[in-house]
Amino acid sequence: MTHLLTPGPVPIPPSVQAALARPVIHHRTPVFRAFYQEMLTGLRYLFQTEQGVGTMVGSGTLGVEAAMYSLFRPADPVLVVSMGKFSGRWAAYARLLGLHVHTLEIAWGECPSPEAIAEKATALPALKGVVLTHSETSTGVVIDLETIAHTLRELNSELLILVDGITSVGAIPYYHDAWGIDAALVASQKSLQNPAGLVAFALSERAISALRATDPSDYRNLYHYLRQARTGDYPYTPPVQLLFGVDAVLKQIRAESLPLVWNRTHQSAARFRAGLSELGGVVFPPAPGDALTAFAWPGQDIPAFKQRLEAEGYLLAGGQGELKGKILRVAHFGYATPDRMRGLLAAMLRAKA
Amino acid sequence: MTHLLTPGPVPIPPSVQAALARPVIHHRTPVFRAFYQEMLTGLRYLFQTEQGVGTMVGSGTLGVEAAMYSLFRPADPVLVVSMGKFSGRWAAYARLLGLHVHTLEIAWGECPSPEAIAEKATALPALKGVVLTHSETSTGVVIDLETIAHTLRELNSELLILVDGITSVGAIPYYHDAWGIDAALVASQKSLQNPAGLVAFALSERAISALRATDPSDYRNLYHYLRQARTGDYPYTPPVQLLFGVDAVLKQIRAESLPLVWNRTHQSAARFRAGLSELGGVVFPPAPGDALTAFAWPGQDIPAFKQRLEAEGYLLAGGQGELKGKILRVAHFGYATPDRMRGLLAAMLRAKA
Repeated sequence: MTHLLTPGPVPIPPSVQAALARPVIHHRTPVFRAFYQEMLTGLRYLFQTEQGVGTMVGSGTLGVEAAMYSLFRPADPVLVVSMGKFSGRWAAYARLLGLHVHTLEIAWGECPSPEAIAEKATALPALKGVVLTHSETSTGVVIDLETIAHTLRELNSELLILVDGITSVGAIPYYHDAWGIDAALVASQKSLQNPAGLVAFALSERAISALRATDPSDYRNLYHYLRQARTGDYPYTPPVQLLFGVDAVLKQIRAESLPLVWNRTHQSAARFRAGLSELGGVVFPPAPGDALTAFAWPGQDIPAFKQRLEAEGYLLAGGQGELKGKILRVAHFGYATPDRMRGLLAAMLRAKA
Repeated sequence: MTHLLTPGPVPIPPSVQAALARPVIHHRTPVFRAFYQEMLTGLRYLFQTEQGVGTMVGSGTLGVEAAMYSLFRPADPVLVVSMGKFSGRWAAYARLLGLHVHTLEIAWGECPSPEAIAEKATALPALKGVVLTHSETSTGVVIDLETIAHTLRELNSELLILVDGITSVGAIPYYHDAWGIDAALVASQKSLQNPAGLVAFALSERAISALRATDPSDYRNLYHYLRQARTGDYPYTPPVQLLFGVDAVLKQIRAESLPLVWNRTHQSAARFRAGLSELGGVVFPPAPGDALTAFAWPGQDIPAFKQRLEAEGYLLAGGQGELKGKILRVAHFGYATPDRMRGLLAAMLRAKA
């Protein structure tokens, strides 16, 4: 058995395995509607919001694209903070959408300061929205979203703040309403410990007012998922077993409470980094977040080390883009508990050159 | 236990339940790559093609949208044959995409003739593509796709023929290469007997040449899924268990052979319609296809009858749009075997007013 410690996908717990193996139920039934409305209550807790929540079927990338598509119109000026593979992808997609894209380019591994983002936003007075990546999965950097959101809101009360929360929501502190976020997305294969394929979103009232009115055939428009979710309905055929699986984890999170879940992520990160430093590895970003750790290792052949770790039963993720072959990445949420970090560190000791 | 006989979703067989409950594996691994390439061999058999195949994560609607988006450019003249809820949706979406949309409007339940489609296409000389729905799930009508495709191809060798095969591929005869289709889509919850959430597609060389070149961030562009599939890779995080589940059914289909699968669908339809007529029900479309049967019942209160059938343990689908409350729809593929039609007919006898 391999310990899958990549920053998504993570292994699924037994409750999710059981949910996935449940018989199919049809989604146009009272049983499904009641279930889905209850599940959305769990999502409101996950996002810490009393506003709009829903789900759509697709990979995380589709979720962020859909939020941009739903909230903005061609030629809208938006600022994308680009600081790694995924945040860079949102800038590229915003251009494809025909938005007027401004980027704040941050070196991979560096953390943008609230001041730098505010300064850039101030220089763009007609700005419609800002796209932020809370935890950049390619580098492990977590931005100070609370301060950034408050600063942006003070600059412009109508600004739409869109957050890629794919490796942050459910893993580290996130408060949709208290921080004044307008749209946030999470994907099923991260803190929700399910197969990929489902995206959950939270929308503020301000974001809901901004949604475009289109024909129901428009798959990427979050408006349709949100509107139908009010009665427990779904605009297209959903994977009910995957919804059951996500619901099972949402129930576990509610039972345990988010602060305890977040604390476990923090303990996993702290334990791993303490051991890493003793072994000779180096955390890659100067100010790493807790959701995952990207690390380098002076003198170590990283691809060969990764292979030896796999022979020890531990699968980590490699670097992406310009970091390919140079770093490894390990998750600290879901399956990647502090205890598993202890086992990983022992394997790293055996595998190091 | 309820017999779910809706024209998608259908119940999942035990082999799929087992596949869904398998542990997560990471998709950037040699094991996944070898598996996915093997699965694509199964898809080529399903579509009866030697050309391009791939999968993407989303509901069936996203698949058809993605094919239109990938093949056509704004202002391209396309003809959409609109004959029910789903084919009507493709016309609406083509307009959203900014295509120059011409429709051939067919009354719900009627079947467009090859001559009518050819006549319309001939009157549109700069036509770039034609969007056809092989089996319209809202009415049960199946078009004579082979004749239509051959006729269109004779008119215009460059025309892109895009087929919604969502309730046809794997259920009734479909020959991608022999019929000269350019793009076709199927969804996991129909003949593939899996949860919803995965779309499989087949593309001709002509379609592949027409794909737009965009940044990899462009989720809806089939180009990226096709290009990566060549090495067993995936552009975003896929739901590996669902791919395992679809693969399990593809293996069953290959082992049994498509002609035998198609014959079972035909026998299921024939048995159901013979019994329906004896009981007093009436098949809704004048020329029904085999994938599903939509039926009315003079003198029967359809919603009340549907409820009584559910109490008997049989869930059918109701009518959609203008047919809501007026018809019921029953699948003939996957779980909906001839034997289950026998049980359904007995329940209908008990439930009829």
